[in-house]
Amino acid sequence: MDTEEIAKTAKAAFEESQLVSSSERVKALQVIRKQLELRKAEILAANAEDLKAAQAEVDASRMSHSLLSRLDLGRGDKWDSMLQGIDDVAALPDPTGIVTYASELDDNLELYRVTCPIGVLLVVFEARPEVVVNIAALAIKSGNAAILKGGKESNRTTVLLSEAVSEGLAQTAIPQKYIQTVQTRSEVSSLLKQDRYIDLVIPRGSQSLVRSIQNNTTIAVMGHADGLCSIYLDEKADLDKAVRVVVDSKINYPSACNSVETLVVHESLLQTVWPAVAKALLEVDVRLLCDPPTLNALQSLSPSPSNFKTHVEPATPDAYTTEHLSLVLSVITVPFLQSAIQHINAHSSHHTDCIVTESEEAGSVFCRAVDSAGTFINASTRFADGFRYGFGTEVGISTGRIHARGPVGLEGLMIYKYKLRSKDKFGHIVGDFGPGKRQYKHSAINASALPF
Amino acid sequence: MDTEEIAKTAKAAFEESQLVSSSERVKALQVIRKQLELRKAEILAANAEDLKAAQAEVDASRMSHSLLSRLDLGRGDKWDSMLQGIDDVAALPDPTGIVTYASELDDNLELYRVTCPIGVLLVVFEARPEVVVNIAALAIKSGNAAILKGGKESNRTTVLLSEAVSEGLAQTAIPQKYIQTVQTRSEVSSLLKQDRYIDLVIPRGSQSLVRSIQNNTTIAVMGHADGLCSIYLDEKADLDKAVRVVVDSKINYPSACNSVETLVVHESLLQTVWPAVAKALLEVDVRLLCDPPTLNALQSLSPSPSNFKTHVEPATPDAYTTEHLSLVLSVITVPFLQSAIQHINAHSSHHTDCIVTESEEAGSVFCRAVDSAGTFINASTRFADGFRYGFGTEVGISTGRIHARGPVGLEGLMIYKYKLRSKDKFGHIVGDFGPGKRQYKHSAINASALPF
Repeated sequence: MDTEEIAKTAKAAFEESQLVSSSERVKALQVIRKQLELRKAEILAANAEDLKAAQAEVDASRMSHSLLSRLDLGRGDKWDSMLQGIDDVAALPDPTGIVTYASELDDNLELYRVTCPIGVLLVVFEARPEVVVNIAALAIKSGNAAILKGGKESNRTTVLLSEAVSEGLAQTAIPQKYIQTVQTRSEVSSLLKQDRYIDLVIPRGSQSLVRSIQNNTTIAVMGHADGLCSIYLDEKADLDKAVRVVVDSKINYPSACNSVETLVVHESLLQTVWPAVAKALLEVDVRLLCDPPTLNALQSLSPSPSNFKTHVEPATPDAYTTEHLSLVLSVITVPFLQSAIQHINAHSSHHTDCIVTESEEAGSVFCRAVDSAGTFINASTRFADGFRYGFGTEVGISTGRIHARGPVGLEGLMIYKYKLRSKDKFGHIVGDFGPGKRQYKHSAINASALPF
Repeated sequence: MDTEEIAKTAKAAFEESQLVSSSERVKALQVIRKQLELRKAEILAANAEDLKAAQAEVDASRMSHSLLSRLDLGRGDKWDSMLQGIDDVAALPDPTGIVTYASELDDNLELYRVTCPIGVLLVVFEARPEVVVNIAALAIKSGNAAILKGGKESNRTTVLLSEAVSEGLAQTAIPQKYIQTVQTRSEVSSLLKQDRYIDLVIPRGSQSLVRSIQNNTTIAVMGHADGLCSIYLDEKADLDKAVRVVVDSKINYPSACNSVETLVVHESLLQTVWPAVAKALLEVDVRLLCDPPTLNALQSLSPSPSNFKTHVEPATPDAYTTEHLSLVLSVITVPFLQSAIQHINAHSSHHTDCIVTESEEAGSVFCRAVDSAGTFINASTRFADGFRYGFGTEVGISTGRIHARGPVGLEGLMIYKYKLRSKDKFGHIVGDFGPGKRQYKHSAINASALPF
């Protein structure tokens, strides 16, 4: 099939599936889970092949160890968690058909705004093959059709995972082509032009992957290219909280998008909280890129902090726009809360930013004025995550400001439609309303479910 | 200023304004209203100049009469309605700061999702100069900064209206550059590239304007290019309702995007409801483009309907993808409800589609399966409108499926941010959670307002 045909088929499958009931969708997830269990040995064998090829790439220094480890579907409880993920999604409340606005416009004329799926999703991801199953589960549960493209390094695995999904769908009322997969970059390039059929693109992967997709499509893109998170140590910061929150935000998982990359320090803390935070970071092997005031403060300490010579250096200006994704932290001093807010708004990627403070006022001002998807008070930036937020699962974290922001769960895959019903014996026409004629009532209807 | 500077200034004004209170925003609207009153004579004089130039264009057949009439700010109560519009927006509830999700993740760790403005809007519109004032009011009320571009035919008027808005803002805590205007198409072209600073583009105008904007930007676009609405006369349609709803949907305002363009007729109605609907349409001068069955049904009537010869003709295939915007209606016959749904999903612009039926089941199936922003039962498609829906005002009608769909009021100009607060005496870190450690509580917090 050419890509236009793939996109068209996806839209047709989406439209066809709109009358499929919620319980049938849950049943489809159960059938897919069984199909995956049936083909487990075969899938893990293909995964071993992918791993072997990847190991050769690692040996030739063309691939990183961390990418290799993400490929491995047989490691630890990864296979079981993948299946558990299907059960978890199946168990979430149905996100469709929820009434979010209901108004009686006139006697016997009722307007309802009801949640419904967006349409066709194009999801492009790298490395982790289990994403095929995660996204298929989310798409089926939310009523969206999906076209998936995994990384070429996991091709053997993802092909079989997709087959299992299709074989599962074939046993249900949902069209078999509801979840499709493509294998090549050139297919993705041409799918990005199918704005007639594809409604949302979700890229998950490296900054360069996301940027390249954002710049090459007029279809809406949901996700994030950068995760440049900051922590501001306010004048009223508590020392212990500062140490705990900064260290956790940096070392809990340094390559994650919600790890801290920049520390903004109020100048009044240079001789107090800052040296304590710096020592704690140096002890866990974090390198510090410091501006002159924070560097001087450490230099003048006696005794010198451990590994000061190897781990502390002056920051270049680009340090504050760099997502280190490693045990490196950029540090800058500011004279006021307002300057911290300005620095963060100008340099952060609007993902998640934190203030450490005992002042309610400063916390409130920071949370209102910092223009990011997450603004935190005395809590690690690492909490920015769909599971931790209580969404059960996430399709990604959005730094956009349209549709959904922050960790995106099932709710972010929904839109709504308006349904208007006249129960009047002559039907309802606009020509009956106006000056000297009928007036709109606009009285709220108390409804959580659609009555038709 | 070059366009990058304009966009950057808008974003800075947006960020600066985030601490401005809701009451200060309402005050700004009142001040702007006064400023407009002060400059009324001058503005209407400029508008008279615009009208004179436009009249010359009409005389030379380079402009339509309807465009000319939309330019006129002095006609009837237009000026007063414009000012009343400011009062109406000021009186709407504050759309910012509403808590839409609140969860206790752990003891003393509270997560809130709170509505907040999107950022910088670029609004491009044609003809009607009062849109400057409408959009400025909506932007100020919702906390979004805006860059506006009106039609060149209303330039003299819009420049003065914008000046009055700026003069008003200068008397408030909101930055004066919060609402900016540009005059040329080339400025719009380069603003469409400023995706770093502009968050949403809202085009209001002709299909070609909207299409050209959609195809030339990677920034999200909200609006609609087409309004191809359909009505399906179901097997169980009531004759009187069919006549009333179809006639109103067609003739109430034929050039509006929510007027009906295609009538889909169940074949069982060819000798009954269809001839009655056709006669009613012909009586009010509507031209009918019919498929063979509907045409034959009219041909075999005796006596022939009035103006049958001049107003009924065979439909060409492109009739069903044409937005007539005039007293023309395309008609097609279908054998089943499912075929009607398929025809509509394939040909409509996903704006608003209606079923006329007495069957609850058919109405419910139609509303679920037709993939449009509005699905109506026995009610005119002309009800698809922000005022009629009870939103007070609208920035436009969206046929997209991301962010907002259908008539878009203040709510469609909002997004949200997550705010997380630890009240724990040591702050909250992710490293404390996991197997054998702390577990997430995820208990709902009952809050309608943010406590910090």
